[in-house]
Amino acid sequence: MLKMSILRSLVPIVARSHGWRCFSTGVPSDTIAELNKEMESIFGESPSPSPLGSSPSPEPAQPSYGAEDLQPVLTHTDSSGQAKMVDVSPKEDSKRVAIASCRVLLGKKVFNLVASNEIAKGDVLTVAKIAGITGAKQTSNLIPLCHNINLSHVRVDLTLSEEDSSVLIEGEATSSGKTGVEMEAMTAATIAGLTIYDMCKAASKDISITDVCLQHKSGGKSGSWSRN
Amino acid sequence: MLKMSILRSLVPIVARSHGWRCFSTGVPSDTIAELNKEMESIFGESPSPSPLGSSPSPEPAQPSYGAEDLQPVLTHTDSSGQAKMVDVSPKEDSKRVAIASCRVLLGKKVFNLVASNEIAKGDVLTVAKIAGITGAKQTSNLIPLCHNINLSHVRVDLTLSEEDSSVLIEGEATSSGKTGVEMEAMTAATIAGLTIYDMCKAASKDISITDVCLQHKSGGKSGSWSRN
Amino acid sequence: MLKMSILRSLVPIVARSHGWRCFSTGVPSDTIAELNKEMESIFGESPSPSPLGSSPSPEPAQPSYGAEDLQPVLTHTDSSGQAKMVDVSPKEDSKRVAIASCRVLLGKKVFNLVASNEIAKGDVLTVAKIAGITGAKQTSNLIPLCHNINLSHVRVDLTLSEEDSSVLIEGEATSSGKTGVEMEAMTAATIAGLTIYDMCKAASKDISITDVCLQHKSGGKSGSWSRN
Amino acid sequence: MLKMSILRSLVPIVARSHGWRCFSTGVPSDTIAELNKEMESIFGESPSPSPLGSSPSPEPAQPSYGAEDLQPVLTHTDSSGQAKMVDVSPKEDSKRVAIASCRVLLGKKVFNLVASNEIAKGDVLTVAKIAGITGAKQTSNLIPLCHNINLSHVRVDLTLSEEDSSVLIEGEATSSGKTGVEMEAMTAATIAGLTIYDMCKAASKDISITDVCLQHKSGGKSGSWSRN
Amino acid sequence: MLKMSILRSLVPIVARSHGWRCFSTGVPSDTIAELNKEMESIFGESPSPSPLGSSPSPEPAQPSYGAEDLQPVLTHTDSSGQAKMVDVSPKEDSKRVAIASCRVLLGKKVFNLVASNEIAKGDVLTVAKIAGITGAKQTSNLIPLCHNINLSHVRVDLTLSEEDSSVLIEGEATSSGKTGVEMEAMTAATIAGLTIYDMCKAASKDISITDVCLQHKSGGKSGSWSRN
Amino acid sequence: MLKMSILRSLVPIVARSHGWRCFSTGVPSDTIAELNKEMESIFGESPSPSPLGSSPSPEPAQPSYGAEDLQPVLTHTDSSGQAKMVDVSPKEDSKRVAIASCRVLLGKKVFNLVASNEIAKGDVLTVAKIAGITGAKQTSNLIPLCHNINLSHVRVDLTLSEEDSSVLIEGEATSSGKTGVEMEAMTAATIAGLTIYDMCKAASKDISITDVCLQHKSGGKSGSWSRN
Repeated sequence: MLKMSILRSLVPIVARSHGWRCFSTGVPSDTIAELNKEMESIFGESPSPSPLGSSPSPEPAQPSYGAEDLQPVLTHTDSSGQAKMVDVSPKEDSKRVAIASCRVLLGKKVFNLVASNEIAKGDVLTVAKIAGITGAKQTSNLIPLCHNINLSHVRVDLTLSEEDSSVLIEGEATSSGKTGVEMEAMTAATIAGLTIYDMCKAASKDISITDVCLQHKSGGKSGSWSRN
Repeated sequence: MLKMSILRSLVPIVARSHGWRCFSTGVPSDTIAELNKEMESIFGESPSPSPLGSSPSPEPAQPSYGAEDLQPVLTHTDSSGQAKMVDVSPKEDSKRVAIASCRVLLGKKVFNLVASNEIAKGDVLTVAKIAGITGAKQTSNLIPLCHNINLSHVRVDLTLSEEDSSVLIEGEATSSGKTGVEMEAMTAATIAGLTIYDMCKAASKDISITDVCLQHKSGGKSGSWSRN
Repeated sequence: MLKMSILRSLVPIVARSHGWRCFSTGVPSDTIAELNKEMESIFGESPSPSPLGSSPSPEPAQPSYGAEDLQPVLTHTDSSGQAKMVDVSPKEDSKRVAIASCRVLLGKKVFNLVASNEIAKGDVLTVAKIAGITGAKQTSNLIPLCHNINLSHVRVDLTLSEEDSSVLIEGEATSSGKTGVEMEAMTAATIAGLTIYDMCKAASKDISITDVCLQHKSGGKSGSWSRN
Repeated sequence: MLKMSILRSLVPIVARSHGWRCFSTGVPSDTIAELNKEMESIFGESPSPSPLGSSPSPEPAQPSYGAEDLQPVLTHTDSSGQAKMVDVSPKEDSKRVAIASCRVLLGKKVFNLVASNEIAKGDVLTVAKIAGITGAKQTSNLIPLCHNINLSHVRVDLTLSEEDSSVLIEGEATSSGKTGVEMEAMTAATIAGLTIYDMCKAASKDISITDVCLQHKSGGKSGSWSRN
Repeated sequence: MLKMSILRSLVPIVARSHGWRCFSTGVPSDTIAELNKEMESIFGESPSPSPLGSSPSPEPAQPSYGAEDLQPVLTHTDSSGQAKMVDVSPKEDSKRVAIASCRVLLGKKVFNLVASNEIAKGDVLTVAKIAGITGAKQTSNLIPLCHNINLSHVRVDLTLSEEDSSVLIEGEATSSGKTGVEMEAMTAATIAGLTIYDMCKAASKDISITDVCLQHKSGGKSGSWSRN
Repeated sequence: MLKMSILRSLVPIVARSHGWRCFSTGVPSDTIAELNKEMESIFGESPSPSPLGSSPSPEPAQPSYGAEDLQPVLTHTDSSGQAKMVDVSPKEDSKRVAIASCRVLLGKKVFNLVASNEIAKGDVLTVAKIAGITGAKQTSNLIPLCHNINLSHVRVDLTLSEEDSSVLIEGEATSSGKTGVEMEAMTAATIAGLTIYDMCKAASKDISITDVCLQHKSGGKSGSWSRN
């Protein structure tokens, strides 16, 4: 009785483990065999890597947003849960734009320091802006499954907001290609935020970066989207 | 009467601008001269870059934490507001550790996808962990005024938190040297968070990264600190 | 009387500072208000960053070369003087080529060392050539506002010139895209020059790199150009 | 008599050296002159770098595969033996795919450790997979004469092979452009192999990586090819 | 009866999964609870990530080489199978040297091309040598769990071996620090090999890199070692 | 008679070529043999790479500055002319500082643009300063035989010089280690110069970078030096 519930709870694990039953791992093979039979009755054959010399792997189906509620899947993992890069070669070229934002909460004292610097020379926000732009160009070296693409534009704007003693950062990336630029925009905003943190950290440990999120995207199959 | 208040409001700007009065910029030189006289009566000579062939620049005074409340300064900008890298050569070698954290808010649907992946193979969190570790090693290439240092350890842990459908990320960096590792810990946590965002973004646009902040640091002149 | 000349001299600074008059910085707000009125009478509203969630920024006007003599502008800064990356997405794809050059003055003694090496094995010039080619591929990681592009060709040639005991370096970059490759050619020549300096510096401190400049460019809206 | 045979044996070297006969290097100029006359009678003028301000270098002839058996040449060196990057600008855009593979021989003991890890969490193979994918994106920074290109897909699969206690690694790269992706596939497989070595090296020094080779390629002028 | 054998085979997986039993994943909690009891009776508590704000993680025990035969472990994964970077901060500084090698099998035709190039100018082997040296400096950016260290020396030698039409590559790395340089030596040899492949690939597809392995290491706790 | 002078002129080439006489290359072996005899009578055995499994290569003798006038050598090539990285492991740790400089000749029109920008916001010089600092941290990735080191400080100062419408750039690097930081200072100044070029190039093609040279160095065996 427990057995079945255990099985139910372990199905995904076993489904994976039985991908390499080809070699024993100290487990009585009859057990594995028995287990495999049950698994297959539920799941069918487990996925296996393409044999050597095989022709290129087929393009994985993209999640249709309508179907998401029924059977959502992660585009960056395959059916066995392994990480994978999405193959964008079948996608259409189009102009793609993404805008992301975040907020660096400085606290009153540090905010005044940054504001004074802005009057004097303005290098704190400029260094952060430059770091955001250069960081966007490094995105594919930072995010393992991100495609390396050419950006036709990166924009990073920083606004001092006195109400909550914060710096509001907006990062925008633009590209003409087969894959979106959300990650480039997210990285631009985040690296700019980390740079402000770096330049201010000696004055306070109560600085935090918050609300890193996407604000807008356009281009690609899924079209345009903006936060409310 | 207005003049004086304007001057007061512009002093930091002028103090800076009058650093290069040596060359005119279409401004009647008598005006600049007159202005300079006033400025100097208030500020004395403005800072100027060391002449060519000068001996190395002296180590800038570090902010004494006691004095901070009186006259806080940014360690990464000089008195004229220009960005600068801190010279750490006079600092003592010591073992330095920093722990930073952030939270990736996934929403219920995406959280279940990541939890299922964790049962099946666990690559989502593993890829994010690896990205955080490799990102920490890239910190000085991302944060312009950060020193390039050797890290003796980087740890990134990710915990699924069902209550708020989030992933809690903790990044830790360790080094033996003259400068702290806060930025390496902050970068480790942030890049891991961005990687989770990347792997889940196709399933939802309501994912955000929040509360990126320092949790603990030890080593160096300012000693140990922990966020209670 | 002085007031007006001060204002004239400070206009650009104030125009900038008054971008964030929304929050006071210890300056009597009536002063700022008064100041703002004057500024606006001269300049109109100051530029302000696009609000959050705004649609992508419009393409900035490119400098028309005819108009340059009247009102030259820097393409890499906006009207408020802030750095920006040029948005090349509206530009046409075309084959773009640029050739840059520089000269490394070695002095007689070092020149003979390099010439002897060229007879023996030739690695000094070969290492410099390779460094120039790989450096060109790193351009967008070195020059903050440079676009990351794909290069279809990089050529670096080094010629020993006995007359002035120098190495003449020519770097050429080729790309098919929306933005020029001057910086890639300039970087190729410069990194090759720095590499020769590195390999020879122990033999003399009187080595210098000079005349780093563009020799030729073709492709793009501004067409072909060659130094007489 | 010896002289002629010496000359025959030295022709390639002299042909090169006499590219810069314009300056003497302690050799009686009449000797060089005499030598040059003989060389030219055999070879005609030696190659020389394009003069400054010259128009871009012409596209070097690609090796015709038919002619290879008669006079094979290296595409990455010019007729004087100097390294060069191939100019791909005249090539056609096409979808290009390459698959490479290698084998990491672990030995029985280490193989069991990796297999056990695969049961427990599977991070060894996952870290290697991620390293292979990110390594592929770094190819042009590692291989000096490789073009920097955009990859539309990278796939790295690792299979535990109990028979010979090895990990079989397959790396696949896909791109749409003017140049092939063999090196990206080779680099993906190799870096994945080095990563497995790194994670296992403390347990044994008898691990080796072997049979790094191409398995399949398609796209480009030379069309498709597969290892039998 | 089957149940127990299944349990035995799944223990490592369950031990891990039950690290986050704190939240259910669609599995009846009583089942998990029951399962946990059994697991704990066998394994005790499962590992869990350190709580936020915790003090730094303790140094993990290094594998004692004597104990290896009894219970070998992977230094780069923890007891739950998760990848981790080794904390080298407790290790002693010492001069560390490692030599690795590999062989590039060219085939007769390509071997002759490379040999001819070596007579003419020698750039093929020089480019590969330079790529190996620069690749060694990139090791920590390529191998995820590798420490970034300063190398005091990198040596790459390539020898043409006519017998088997191959290039024998030897890579050596030297450092003074807390961690070994095997990976730097392995990477130097491998990247040099890939570079030869790149420069020769147009002339043949039957080139392979083989026998990538460590030849010698010295320094560190485990002392000196050489292959027979 | 000619024969001997040819031999004299070719000695360095032959000395190198005869390093690989072990395999014939289509040259009558008796010729090579005959040639070898002569060469050896002059030079003795040619250098050969250390055999596999050899112990680490010995530290090459550093050039003694006194001896330089007699027999200067390049520290970055071995006796056969092959490139090599200097082994710094035997060197002493010491604080090392280097200052380099260069000049960017803008021309009057562009100089005024940069000066105006300096009044308005100052981003042109700030971006160049940041590029120089980050470029210095990239030195070992740009200069093939440069050691990767940790910099304790990088300073880049830019001064507008109206007399010759130029920007004077001074780059300073500081490190505590076994090797000098000249290249880091040279790279800082040069990358800052290239960045100014990039930001101004649309306004004029008559911009050049000149006089890139070392101004000061201290630390290390050769002690302090300044360009008086």
